[in-house]
Amino acid sequence: MKTQVAIIGGGPSGLLLAQLLHVRGIESVVLERKTKDYVLARIRAGVLERGLLDLMREAGVADRMETEGIPHGGTLISYGEEMFRVDFTKHTGHAVMVYGQTEVTRDLYAAREAADGKIEFNVEDVVIHDAKSDAPYVTYSVDGDPHRIDCDFIAGCDGFHGVSRNTMPDNVRREYEKVYPFGWLGILSETPPVNHELIYANSARGFALCSMRNENLSRYYIQCSLSDSPGDWTDAAFWAELKRRIPAEQAEKLITGPSIEKSIAPLRSFVTEPMQWGRLFLCGDAAHIVPPTGAKGLNTAASDVHYLYNALRAHYEKGSDTGLECYSTQALARVWKAERFSWWFSSLMHRYPDQTTFDHRIQVAELEFLRSNDSAQQAMAENYVGLPY
Amino acid sequence: MKTQVAIIGGGPSGLLLAQLLHVRGIESVVLERKTKDYVLARIRAGVLERGLLDLMREAGVADRMETEGIPHGGTLISYGEEMFRVDFTKHTGHAVMVYGQTEVTRDLYAAREAADGKIEFNVEDVVIHDAKSDAPYVTYSVDGDPHRIDCDFIAGCDGFHGVSRNTMPDNVRREYEKVYPFGWLGILSETPPVNHELIYANSARGFALCSMRNENLSRYYIQCSLSDSPGDWTDAAFWAELKRRIPAEQAEKLITGPSIEKSIAPLRSFVTEPMQWGRLFLCGDAAHIVPPTGAKGLNTAASDVHYLYNALRAHYEKGSDTGLECYSTQALARVWKAERFSWWFSSLMHRYPDQTTFDHRIQVAELEFLRSNDSAQQAMAENYVGLPY
Repeated sequence: MKTQVAIIGGGPSGLLLAQLLHVRGIESVVLERKTKDYVLARIRAGVLERGLLDLMREAGVADRMETEGIPHGGTLISYGEEMFRVDFTKHTGHAVMVYGQTEVTRDLYAAREAADGKIEFNVEDVVIHDAKSDAPYVTYSVDGDPHRIDCDFIAGCDGFHGVSRNTMPDNVRREYEKVYPFGWLGILSETPPVNHELIYANSARGFALCSMRNENLSRYYIQCSLSDSPGDWTDAAFWAELKRRIPAEQAEKLITGPSIEKSIAPLRSFVTEPMQWGRLFLCGDAAHIVPPTGAKGLNTAASDVHYLYNALRAHYEKGSDTGLECYSTQALARVWKAERFSWWFSSLMHRYPDQTTFDHRIQVAELEFLRSNDSAQQAMAENYVGLPY
Repeated sequence: MKTQVAIIGGGPSGLLLAQLLHVRGIESVVLERKTKDYVLARIRAGVLERGLLDLMREAGVADRMETEGIPHGGTLISYGEEMFRVDFTKHTGHAVMVYGQTEVTRDLYAAREAADGKIEFNVEDVVIHDAKSDAPYVTYSVDGDPHRIDCDFIAGCDGFHGVSRNTMPDNVRREYEKVYPFGWLGILSETPPVNHELIYANSARGFALCSMRNENLSRYYIQCSLSDSPGDWTDAAFWAELKRRIPAEQAEKLITGPSIEKSIAPLRSFVTEPMQWGRLFLCGDAAHIVPPTGAKGLNTAASDVHYLYNALRAHYEKGSDTGLECYSTQALARVWKAERFSWWFSSLMHRYPDQTTFDHRIQVAELEFLRSNDSAQQAMAENYVGLPY
């Protein structure tokens, strides 16, 4: 098989790139290790930056998002019984959109299928060959049958555990990592959200987040120990703990119900440099991970897709390779800004096992400064809605 | 002896408070453990916030400062060979004033002497009595002769090692502290400053600061190990190291000369709460210490003096004790903002022994965000020129 761009990974980054390229008449094949149902069952983030909204529109997959997504013009931040709002619209002229990553992926699959886009599921033994040459190719097998795709470029959209990053030799990669000493225990429940905007809570008992997918589907998280397992937490214990971590006025309004999903995610910051090796380009989690505080995971993947898509367009439409040559530098400049914001917001909102009383008072001072200072709120709002590409 | 306000400590905080009270006809006595010459020989900060400028004017001691002080409308920040400017005037409408703490103290002594203000030098064995009663008094000795001052209020302006804070029983004090794992090696030299504004430098070899007292008196600092002593550093070694830590273009312009002072200061963040105990009120270093990055030491002492001065005026002029009752809460709210800023700016600019490569890249990302983001610069400028009282 021959194509222009081989895309490894059928999650939202790979699909979005494929769909954007399709709109410009650039051919691709997507290789996905799992099934479509498996990909769609992954519960992930649900807050989309303006840049991703624009990409969805450009890809022609924004209709349902525009109808069903919930624009959020601000967010609430609480510490103890104190709570304040950061107004995104006032500070930036933009809002974010609450629309689940699952829904984004679903819309992208629908569009790829409608366009008869090539997606191979259940691929195994993916190997990237000759990425440093002008004629790279990818081999893989499906049900034991070997396959080969010859291509111009390879997009590695296969996540943190994928083969793409590991195809780059150790001696060209520099990796940066921070592992946080806690996890997030999250539940999904078919209850109305406690508040129409998100609440990020710093409490003496640890972080909590009140989020949502839609008007009858709530997503709540509490900071937990890395040694906890979801089975340790009954629904009742989760709700009781959540209520202790948000202001009493909110806790009283909280409607609880059975969880329909319950899981623990560790928190990690990770970046690999460079994001290009020959004709292999890394996108999203394949190259970087952020802790979920501030919802920058999918959105930062989208910023990579933006740079790679535009670089590929310039190559095919204008014969210019500047964008491809600058891809790693451009993408990483924005990745590090998102890493910084996610690290900062995580540091501000969580309790750390080794935190001193001084460290805690600095958190409170920073929250009070953010509460009272317009320019601090503006800097936060600009990051939250997404820095310009 | 009887007075209205007994002020313990003849540094700039105590003298400024005495002079401000004098302007309003409120009597005080200042007790200083050392001599005037000793106090004036202390080399300290040299960047004054707008709030302190206003207090100097209100105290009638601003004439020489207005003439000889150098207004700075911005500052330079470098990392590696990159350098950018944060414009205070554009962002806040205010500048800071470069005018040495020694000069402030000298002007205050001149004013106190001209007004025949009572200052006792060489006092020993200072003890604060009955601070929780309506009739506090202070005992001390000079040359072995015992003395007693009866007063309405006591201002503890006697620094971190003074008796005032330690007069408050352990069980009413909460203390918060962070000790930084490095020091500042500083020199004073009779050379023109390398640049007309300050340069704060984050380099691979550690922090450096190019500061000044006037057009022919420069103050330079480099981050050093806590195990270093000033004798370990020849002038030549200091200049060579400083040049490696600032952008090459600046290093080439640097004019070196013999040091006329050389010393190492540790960096510490410290806050004690509350700042009031009965009729004893703590001001400045007696209650809190900041690391020198951002020049908040003297300026935060001045903010305490502002609150205490206004509270004492309200007591004597209007019979209102609200200000005195709220002193600790009001002063601490601003102290913690200054602590946060000083901690943040120190964290951003220094190399830490246990810093990972990820931590370092986050510093660079934060510096690049600050360089490129107007609201981040504004928040920094507002802190640097001094948040409103």
